Amino acid sequence: MHPLAERVLQHEVRAAARAMRLIDDRTPDAAALLKDLFPHTGKASIIGVTGNPGAGKSTLVDRLIEIYRKEGKRVGVIAVDPSSPYTGGAILGDRIRMQRHATDEGVFIRSVATRGHMGGLSRSARDLVRVLDAFGCDVVLVETVGVGQDELEITRTAHTTLVVMAPGMGDEVQAIKAGLMEVADVFAVNKADKDGADATVRDLELMIALGSDVMIAVGKQRGHTVHGKTAGLKSSFETNDERWTPPIQKCVSTRNEGVADLTTLLAKHRVWVETTEAGKARKHARLGEELRDSLREALIEAATSALEKELEEAVAAVERHEVDPYTATERLIDQFRAGITSRS
Amino acid sequence: MHPLAERVLQHEVRAAARAMRLIDDRTPDAAALLKDLFPHTGKASIIGVTGNPGAGKSTLVDRLIEIYRKEGKRVGVIAVDPSSPYTGGAILGDRIRMQRHATDEGVFIRSVATRGHMGGLSRSARDLVRVLDAFGCDVVLVETVGVGQDELEITRTAHTTLVVMAPGMGDEVQAIKAGLMEVADVFAVNKADKDGADATVRDLELMIALGSDVMIAVGKQRGHTVHGKTAGLKSSFETNDERWTPPIQKCVSTRNEGVADLTTLLAKHRVWVETTEAGKARKHARLGEELRDSLREALIEAATSALEKELEEAVAAVERHEVDPYTATERLIDQFRAGITSRS
Repeated sequence: MHPLAERVLQHEVRAAARAMRLIDDRTPDAAALLKDLFPHTGKASIIGVTGNPGAGKSTLVDRLIEIYRKEGKRVGVIAVDPSSPYTGGAILGDRIRMQRHATDEGVFIRSVATRGHMGGLSRSARDLVRVLDAFGCDVVLVETVGVGQDELEITRTAHTTLVVMAPGMGDEVQAIKAGLMEVADVFAVNKADKDGADATVRDLELMIALGSDVMIAVGKQRGHTVHGKTAGLKSSFETNDERWTPPIQKCVSTRNEGVADLTTLLAKHRVWVETTEAGKARKHARLGEELRDSLREALIEAATSALEKELEEAVAAVERHEVDPYTATERLIDQFRAGITSRS
Repeated sequence: MHPLAERVLQHEVRAAARAMRLIDDRTPDAAALLKDLFPHTGKASIIGVTGNPGAGKSTLVDRLIEIYRKEGKRVGVIAVDPSSPYTGGAILGDRIRMQRHATDEGVFIRSVATRGHMGGLSRSARDLVRVLDAFGCDVVLVETVGVGQDELEITRTAHTTLVVMAPGMGDEVQAIKAGLMEVADVFAVNKADKDGADATVRDLELMIALGSDVMIAVGKQRGHTVHGKTAGLKSSFETNDERWTPPIQKCVSTRNEGVADLTTLLAKHRVWVETTEAGKARKHARLGEELRDSLREALIEAATSALEKELEEAVAAVERHEVDPYTATERLIDQFRAGITSRS
């Protein structure tokens, strides 16, 4: 066993931090480590927290940590920061977030920059979650901003995805556009002491009942505000063994109202995932997605390192218009599969 | 030669439209078509137009079309629409955009939905641009919303990227966060009749001079507003053979002010790309990126179709905790390279 793996399993904070840095750097060592940690994963509840900027996600996450800590749970947080895909640096660091938990040994917070690597962000998030899981976290919160494809992909690494909204920000329509409706398992209408909270709840109920395609059309017709009655539609809201219907919870994170009820709903969803056939099928499908993702990543790495010289020759040939890029690509793949490459 | 390719080269509008649909559907036929069209590409000026929503991109593009048409140029437009990655539908269609050019045979407008395919969006955009290039367009405008990784990637398919901003929207800081500073070749400060236009220009000058990393720090310290003097920094603004420094043009699209000057700057940048060593190196690098991208895509397609059965078995094995996902991936790649797959 990897020496670092052993120390992670013994709950050593510094070992967990070091393991995460290895994963960031994607050394071959990191793969060895993850292989050793994998058999010890699967215990943590993984909760994705997403929503538009300004919905109050960070404050809510802070409150969730508080509640889980009071229950004696060990909590991990992966905060995926919005940042330039070209500079690769995280704008918000660990230090300025959730400072009051910084000295609590039962809370492990890690920021991740949204680098420019294709598909790499959700792989990194998934691997970091596994470290925290093996490290002994009972709950792992993965916080992302609900904009962009990459961030949405990350929600698929969680058992349960919490979408946070605030009233009066046009979040409902934004949420549809961003694809948040499709990934939400639980909705939090945060800042519920503000005007428009009930309208936001009604809108969400209506959208859940009707499905988002319909609502895009309705929303556009009404100038991007979606208000409607949900009477008579209640039957579509029921969760059963075949289908989970996202519940909506109002809360005021700053005053710690409604957050405890939220944790109850999150726990209920986890039970649904683990106990129903539909929930298990979802888990199976997501594992399939993970393997497909990692196959993609690993293939690309293997091919680009094996074909380095051939690629450069192909670029030059296309530049001289001797060959088109489509034919050049086909030839590169044949070379890779046949093993006729500069490296092999 | 593909019969459709012949008709595209003879400037048949319906053939171009049909070719683009083939590319959307990614049939094997589309690859054959693109191979035939490639030798006839390379003439069009490809201009990416990006910026945050609300900066007035569509109106500006409309004005640019007008100017290029007056110069007797044939114009193509690829409009990449924001849409849900999960529903895959375009929210804005061709019909509601730039309607006044709809009956002009010298203008070809095509909307593209931002589908959920990894890396697929920029590949599609690049291929559609090639069709318009072979079709005889002198200028191809590729309009994207400057949010998200995929949209940024698309700018790399252009010779010249125009970043559109509006004053007083905090666009400068947004632009840094979104990575727009790194991709901009020319800046348009649109809606320049509004308050704050000069401040936006100064901010941009300062950001260009200092580089975006520095400005992120400064911006944060000042609560996300970046104002500063640029005196003494002018030396960093010069464009020379080694380096292109993005010029900034104020304009008011709605009144058609400053847009002609913008086309002059865009043309100047194209000349820089074509004539300087640094410009040529950039073109070469981007062609390399394209080949790497298409190698990735094609590899993934080849592997996932060859390994269908093996993947399903691997998922089941990981689910039973018989093997970890990292080892499972390595085995799949070995199978693909050795040709031991269910399909081959």
